[in-house]
This record gives sequence, structure tokens and C-alpha cells, in this order.
Amino acid sequence: MELRTDLAVEAREIAGEHVGGVEYRSYHENGLEISRLTVKNQKAKQALGKEIGTYITIELPSLTDNFTETDQRLVTIGKEIRRLLPVHGLVLVVGLGNLEITPDSLGPKTSSRVLATRHITGEIAKATGLDKLRPVAVMQTGVTGQTGIETGEYILSVVKRIRPNAVVAIDALASRKLERLGCTLQISDTGISPGAGVGNHRTKITKETIGVPVIAIGVPTVVDAQTLAIDLLKGDCSAKTRKLLSPQGRQMVVIPREIDLLTERASRLIAFALNGALQNEFDLPDLVSLM
Amino acid sequence: MELRTDLAVEAREIAGEHVGGVEYRSYHENGLEISRLTVKNQKAKQALGKEIGTYITIELPSLTDNFTETDQRLVTIGKEIRRLLPVHGLVLVVGLGNLEITPDSLGPKTSSRVLATRHITGEIAKATGLDKLRPVAVMQTGVTGQTGIETGEYILSVVKRIRPNAVVAIDALASRKLERLGCTLQISDTGISPGAGVGNHRTKITKETIGVPVIAIGVPTVVDAQTLAIDLLKGDCSAKTRKLLSPQGRQMVVIPREIDLLTERASRLIAFALNGALQNEFDLPDLVSLM
Amino acid sequence: MELRTDLAVEAREIAGEHVGGVEYRSYHENGLEISRLTVKNQKAKQALGKEIGTYITIELPSLTDNFTETDQRLVTIGKEIRRLLPVHGLVLVVGLGNLEITPDSLGPKTSSRVLATRHITGEIAKATGLDKLRPVAVMQTGVTGQTGIETGEYILSVVKRIRPNAVVAIDALASRKLERLGCTLQISDTGISPGAGVGNHRTKITKETIGVPVIAIGVPTVVDAQTLAIDLLKGDCSAKTRKLLSPQGRQMVVIPREIDLLTERASRLIAFALNGALQNEFDLPDLVSLM
Amino acid sequence: MELRTDLAVEAREIAGEHVGGVEYRSYHENGLEISRLTVKNQKAKQALGKEIGTYITIELPSLTDNFTETDQRLVTIGKEIRRLLPVHGLVLVVGLGNLEITPDSLGPKTSSRVLATRHITGEIAKATGLDKLRPVAVMQTGVTGQTGIETGEYILSVVKRIRPNAVVAIDALASRKLERLGCTLQISDTGISPGAGVGNHRTKITKETIGVPVIAIGVPTVVDAQTLAIDLLKGDCSAKTRKLLSPQGRQMVVIPREIDLLTERASRLIAFALNGALQNEFDLPDLVSLM
Repeated sequence: MELRTDLAVEAREIAGEHVGGVEYRSYHENGLEISRLTVKNQKAKQALGKEIGTYITIELPSLTDNFTETDQRLVTIGKEIRRLLPVHGLVLVVGLGNLEITPDSLGPKTSSRVLATRHITGEIAKATGLDKLRPVAVMQTGVTGQTGIETGEYILSVVKRIRPNAVVAIDALASRKLERLGCTLQISDTGISPGAGVGNHRTKITKETIGVPVIAIGVPTVVDAQTLAIDLLKGDCSAKTRKLLSPQGRQMVVIPREIDLLTERASRLIAFALNGALQNEFDLPDLVSLM
Repeated sequence: MELRTDLAVEAREIAGEHVGGVEYRSYHENGLEISRLTVKNQKAKQALGKEIGTYITIELPSLTDNFTETDQRLVTIGKEIRRLLPVHGLVLVVGLGNLEITPDSLGPKTSSRVLATRHITGEIAKATGLDKLRPVAVMQTGVTGQTGIETGEYILSVVKRIRPNAVVAIDALASRKLERLGCTLQISDTGISPGAGVGNHRTKITKETIGVPVIAIGVPTVVDAQTLAIDLLKGDCSAKTRKLLSPQGRQMVVIPREIDLLTERASRLIAFALNGALQNEFDLPDLVSLM
Repeated sequence: MELRTDLAVEAREIAGEHVGGVEYRSYHENGLEISRLTVKNQKAKQALGKEIGTYITIELPSLTDNFTETDQRLVTIGKEIRRLLPVHGLVLVVGLGNLEITPDSLGPKTSSRVLATRHITGEIAKATGLDKLRPVAVMQTGVTGQTGIETGEYILSVVKRIRPNAVVAIDALASRKLERLGCTLQISDTGISPGAGVGNHRTKITKETIGVPVIAIGVPTVVDAQTLAIDLLKGDCSAKTRKLLSPQGRQMVVIPREIDLLTERASRLIAFALNGALQNEFDLPDLVSLM
Repeated sequence: MELRTDLAVEAREIAGEHVGGVEYRSYHENGLEISRLTVKNQKAKQALGKEIGTYITIELPSLTDNFTETDQRLVTIGKEIRRLLPVHGLVLVVGLGNLEITPDSLGPKTSSRVLATRHITGEIAKATGLDKLRPVAVMQTGVTGQTGIETGEYILSVVKRIRPNAVVAIDALASRKLERLGCTLQISDTGISPGAGVGNHRTKITKETIGVPVIAIGVPTVVDAQTLAIDLLKGDCSAKTRKLLSPQGRQMVVIPREIDLLTERASRLIAFALNGALQNEFDLPDLVSLM
């Protein structure tokens, strides 16, 4: 049994703050606490168990704090996403996970709110000014058990056809701490690694495997019951504890009771910010009204 | 912090097997493990924290074991429910809980599958033989935050109007053990007590408050994170642990990742068995085809 | 076969504009076309087939015209609703219809967006200022086939218990003209008559039967196929036509392909306006953020 | 304005029964009325407006007639589908249409019930006998407005990657006659043509464009309002009629009120039969229990 987290900032907490090859700085903007963590070399990668690259972490307001479409915090989040995107060209947005398993539904719920524009072309687009929108395509991979197609393979088949300049992959994450559920947003330029996400994808979805940069965006929706147990027991876990926590091999997760609201809020927030990041010529409210 | 469970058999495990005034026997039927626990007096009630009355507990097959509509186990479960029902007269089936919060959705999901027949009257009913069906009415209370009406008050208002001979209240439960999630069915003649259920209703729904017998049916869908922690820490919980487990006062629960499937299966199973229990003149498959 | 419409303005078009006992005037406000039609006496009632009372009709912008939460048109609609409400006291908002049949789902979809406040009482409410909110309770009746309880009987049982000063009943309507689908809002102080609505309720829900004023709010979502046929054939319908239009007695309706979007938009619009009408001490955007 | 139908049997009714190059025969099996229509040459293709190939039409029982999983009629339908499938090899099942627009949701609803097996490989599959299942992959295309990817392009990208022996495309259809809604199943080996389906896809999905045989399966869920009008008016339609039927250019369709139930039933029926057709080594009930 080991501590499981998809968040780079938690991996750093676990490995210790003075690991070599890890750069970390944090700042505030528009009332949001933002940090940038860079894994710079192989040594840092192994110490943290995180791919080489940049991880931006944004602490969101607590669940009771509603945001509106014109919230400046959304603009701030959108800017952080935009910095990782190529300046021009087609972007393929991919929702990972299972729509029917609430804690795993962040990906499909969010991607279905992203404005697809790749098909808007021709005279009408020119006449209405819509030809100035950045081309965006949107897909949901479903889960391999329902499609018979590995997630990475599915994305690759579409990437080969439509040749995007970048992929944005949205997925539900696991964190180590209950307080972060629904309240922490991680954006990275490192793609998705095997075993990450609530659905535990088996394939790597990175520039290496897909051929184009992969920006990963996620919010933790669960803490693994085993990770919570290790924290409570300070690592002192017997075989009996393990069995108790995983009856008949079923994986148990800890969630807030209001998991449905949490997933809904995170999905709307990411979709708003991502639409703003992708279509930077336009005001966020206008785009939202198109949704 | 204390151990929380809505299951009488777990309350007995906690209180000890030799508490006075508690009768307990178990048996097997059609491959199901069934137990009958009777809380006989005030002393037993206080020791177990459970109302005086009978609690039937049925261990369901594990989640991977599918049942079909003609499964004899459903007939067995139906018979156990029927024993607690009055022989004749109108039954009001009530789904408690919140359809939009998956672990709390068992009540509304199940009740929406129960065959309502109270309105089937007159010449057509006679001609088709449907007048032999037992009269059944079905309601869903929603949650007070969405209706502004207390659950007990809502049920009472309908009971006063349609005057049923009994109420069957279906609700998601909390258990102490992860292995019981989705796999234990409790049927009791004691109604619903304040603080029970995943949604933690504040009002008592019993013969005392409603005026007619209240049969409660439930399946555990969550373990409270605090209850799990107590078990793991053998009761040795600090204030820091409590805060960790309940950030910003949010209530955390432990669920299997496949909570949606678990709730769906339990809901279908209870609905099949309950329809069979209510309409005992008819074969289960015929009824199911009406659903 | 006869022309079916739930809209008073269409009933007036059919009966002719010079029927005695019908008052009609129209005006513009905030870009909305609003009319007030009053059925003043028995003669007018029989000529129009509409109960005595006031019918306010608001032409909504076409489906492609999005409105935002701060839209002044919502304030205008809210004011029209508020004029028909009692100044003080509890209001029970009732969603009629079937959530699972899209064209009939306007009632439950809308009422689930109305802010319930009746349960917000006590010290906390005072401290937060929430005790100034008007008390509102919200219920959904479901359909008799699923509950075994007549819609009117269900409402009456709750009314007798919580004793509201008024009931607001929201229901999907049938209109005569396709162009009105999703684009016309009718508000009346006459309650709901048998045979009205997409679900064709059999019971009257009026001050007479319920004991308190009943405000009805609806938007047409369907045109009956038979009504369309009469218009196309100028009333010249043979028995063969009738059978063609109603195979095996099934009732056919005409809808726009985008019926789901239409119902969603109408539901949000009514909920926004109604929340504003009920909670007039507060700004609409604030309320919306509570939703 | 012209009569619109996606059903070959209706195209034949319109063109006349004695058009050259059209073969037609009908028979009964297990209480189902089945017909085989073959468009044999270019002349027949132009007369009927249907691609060259075979169209099997099965009249389903009326909506009130429930079928169960062991119904022999499902076996019959499964056999008809199997005849058009290649004997061995991977099959890609594609659900076309929009899950959020009920009359257009048949494709995604059905495909999500088809058993994906392509990923079941290796030692475990051998040990459990699951390696004998035919490999099946399942995808849903969504709609271009939401994905930015043309339906045909999307399918082609996956076909190129996973190289199936055949594609099965499921889509909601438009018929000319109301009595056929939900009650007629068409299976063809001709793929999908532009303008077909409720969603009116613009691209051809056929062996020609995709590179492998495309079996199309569909059930009509709508009649175009204009087609109904032509039938009612015997073709005598003025410009005014056209405008009345298509206000603001919105496309109107005629549906039964119970469109949700109709789509649900058709989706389950096709999924059962298709699973049986694909996995012919296994009994239908066993497969169903896997769903």
C-alpha cells in the first residue's frame, strides 16, 4: 500500500520540499492561490513520480462560493491554460472517464461544454465573423470496457485524421487530502500517465505517444480509501487492514456526500475557463451565451 | 466521534452478542443468508440504539452476481417483505432521499419502479382482471432543501388524504463495514428514525408519527469516513483527525468506485421483490413486464 | 375533431375578436410583446372555452436569442407574475407533468429550479438575513399512472397540511400554431382545467377545488397533430384522416426537432422570472447564484 | 416540398409496386412480418431514391406488447442481422445521432447497450472462455455541432486504426406514416446516405467511403411535418402552408407523445437482437446478463 495522488504539489509534499530538480513558486492573482511546479530532470521525476514538465495548481474557492460567468477568476484560470497552448491552430479537447460513474465523470461532463468550432467554415462563417474562432474539435473516449478501444488508441486514431496542434485532456483526479476534493485545479503540459485519474487508464497519453503536445487538466474528486488509511495509521497497515479496505478486491474511494454538485461545479468552471483560453479574441460572456 | 450504522445486525456486533432483550436467529433459504433480529424491550433498544421491533437482514450476492427476473432469490426476499405487510388494503410506497446525489438516490430510484395501482378502478379494471391487484400508491419526498417541506410532514399530508393501511419507506443506509455496501438488505417494521439514512432525515417516520405501520427497506451505500477512521484507529481519534476527515465541516463518505452500478442493482432488486410482495396473486415475471 | 389550444389568445382568434365579455389589450415593455385578456362572464367563457379570469400572454424571443440572468426581460416577466400573487404569505409551487416525456417535462423541470425557502427558519436564518425571504414550498406531482394518486388530490393533500396563500402551477401547454412552440408564455389566475396541458390532467386545479388562488404558468411545447390537420385541411377531415393521424389510438403531436433545448430554455426562463417574482426584496442575480 | 422517408418499403409504395429492378417478397416468422426488398440496378435506385442493395423490414409488435429477453422474436431479428454480417472478424458498432434530442437518440442509446469485447484478450479471457466471443468495438459519433468532426470522418479515423471487417451503423429514421413510428425495423447492407436519419447527416457512410461493408439498422421515430402535410393535402401545398409548417425555418416533426418510451423500447430491442447476432455461440439470456 502506498500514498496515491495525481497532484504534483502533493507528490512534492510527500517527497519533501528540498528535492533537487524541482522548481516551485506560488503567487496570488484575483484572489486565487496559484503555484507553478516544474519537474526539471530525471532525478526529480523519480523522486516525485511525476513526468518532467510544468504543473500549475490553482486553489479554487470552496464549494459554497459560487462564481458567475463574468468572474475575473475564470479569466485568470483561462490565462494559465492559454500559456500552455500553442498560439495558433486546431486544438482537440478530449474528455476522459465514465459519464455514468459520478466521481469519474468530470472529463465527459466538461468536454461536452467546450465549444466545437472546427466545422464552422465557408461563406456563412465569414459573414458572421465566426471564421475568427480558433478551430476546436471535441471528443469523449468513453471507457475501454464499453468501447473495446483503449483510450490512447482512440485519441491517436482521431489525431492522425484531424492533425491538431495540441490535445487538451480533461480527467478526474485522485488526491491525498479530502480538503482538496473539488477545490484544486491542476493544469500540466505533461499529458496523462498510466494509472492516473479516477478511472486508472492503462495507456500513456503524451507528446511521445500521440505526436502532439498534451495539456492535462483535472480536479480531484476522490481520495483512495487506502491512501486515507495510510495517513490515519501513519503507514502502519496490516494485511487485515488492507482486506478490510478492499473487500472482494473492490476499490473504495472517499468522497464528499455532495459529489454530484462538486463534479458539476468543477466541470462548469473548467469549461468556462477553457473556452476563454481557446477563443481569446472573444469575451467570455459572449462565448458562454453560445453554449 | 462514534461508530455510525443503520444496520441492526451491526449495532448488535458493536453492543455485543449477549445483550438482554435481543433475539437473533439466522437461516439459509434459496442460497441467501437471512437473519431475524428482534429488539424486545427498552433495555435492548438503548443498548443497540435501535427501535423496538423486528429487523430482517438478507445478505445479497456480490455485485458481480447478476440476478434475473425469475430468480427464486427475489421470491424469497419478496416473502420476507410480505410477512411484515398487512394482508389487505392500500399500501403507500415512499422513496426517501435525493435523486441527484447518487449514494442517496436509492429511495427515489426504487420507488419509481414500483407499480402504482390505486388509480386502476372501474369497469375496465374489472374486465381486464386488474381490479384484483392490491391498491398501491407511490410518492417521492425529495429533500427538504429542495421542497421546503419536512419529509415526515410530506408523507403525513398524503397519508391523511389517501389513508393507507401501511407505508413502505425505502432509503439508502450507512453501514460500518465496506464489504456490506450494496450487499446487505435490511427490512424492518420499525419505520425510520431521526439521523438514519444517507440523507440524515430529521423527522421520525413511524407508526407513532404517521398513524399506520411503517415498513422500512434499505441497503447501505456508504460508510461514514469517521466511522471507518474509528475502526482503523481502534477508537483513538484526535481532534486533528476529526478535522482532516471533515474539512470545512463537509461530511465525507466512503463508497465503492462503482457506486452508480451498485445503487442501480439494489434499486432493481428491491423493486422486483417489493412488487412481488405487494401483488402476491400474480407471477413476478408478469408484473415485471408491466414495468 | 376540433382545434385544441391551451392559449386564451388563440381561443380568442378562433372565436373571433368581437365576442362580448372579452377584454383584450396589448403593449410592449423591454422589447417584449405582452397582452392581457380578460374573460369577464359566462358568455365569454363559453365562447372561448376558457375560465373566467385574466390571461397574460408574453411573446418570448425566438429560440436562437439567448437571455442572460441579468436580462431586463426577465424582470418584466417576473413583474407580470407578481401582480397575480398575494402580497404576503407562503406560496406552493407545483410542477405538473412527466419528467420522462420531454414535451410534458416543463413543470417538473421548472419547479426543480424554484428556490424552496419555507424550511429556512430560526436563529441562523435571522443571522444571515434569510428570514426575509418569502416562504416558498415546491412539489412535483408526477403522473397518476406512476403514483396512483390524482394530481389534484395530491396537491390538495399538501395544501391542507401546509396552508399556502396561493398555488403556482407550472405545466406544458398545447398551442394551435407551430410558431408559438417555446416562444409564448401564458400566465393566468384561473388555475388548470381538465383536459389542459400536454399530459391532459383529468382534475380541475382551481381556487374552487383547492381552496386558495391558483396561478397557472405555461409555455406550449406541442401542437396536436389533429389540430394541425384541421388547419391544413380547413376543417375538412374524413374518418380516414382521423385514423391516419391517430394509429392504434396513439396521440400524435408536432414538435420542433430541438424539443429538448426548447423545454430547457423555457424552464430556465420561467424559473428565473418566478424566483424574482417570489423574492422581490432581492436582486435576481443573487437569487440565481443560490440556485 | 416532397415526401420524405428513410424506409425502402415506403419508397416502393410511393414509386409504385411495378418498378423494374426491384425485388420484393414478404414472409412471416415467429409472429413477425418480414419483407426483403432488393434494389438491383441504377434504374431502380433512381425510381426509389434508395441505394442498390438489400433492405429487410420487420414489423414490430405495437408499443403496448412487451417482449422479454428470451422472446423468440428477438432471435428471429438477430438472425436477419447475422445474415448481412461477415462470418468472422471484428465488427465496429456505431451509434449515430444526438443523445440529448430524444427522437434522434436511438443510435447512442442502442450502441451503449452493445457488448464491447475487442479488449477482452489474453490469459484471463482464455481461462473464462471469453476468448470465444466475437471481437466487437463500439463508438458513438456525437453530432458535428458538438464535436467539430463530421460523422463520416470520425468513423473513418477509427476504422483506419482498428480495421474492422464490417461497420454496423444505428440511426433514428424518418418515415412517411405515423403508424410505423417505433414499430418498423429496417436493416440494410447499403450504409447511410446523406440526408437520411433524424439528424440529417451530410456525409455518406458506405463501403465506398469507409472501405468495409456498412450494415445500417434503424427504426423510424418521426414523420416530417411537411411530409404529413403533403399526405393530408394530397400534394397541394402553397407557399403559405410551407411557412406555417416551418416557422423561422425550424424543422417540425410529428411524434407520438410517448416518444421517450418508444425510443427506449426500440433501443433495447435492437441491442438484444444485435448482441445475439454478433455473439452467436452464446445464448441470448447469458449475454443479456452481462449487460
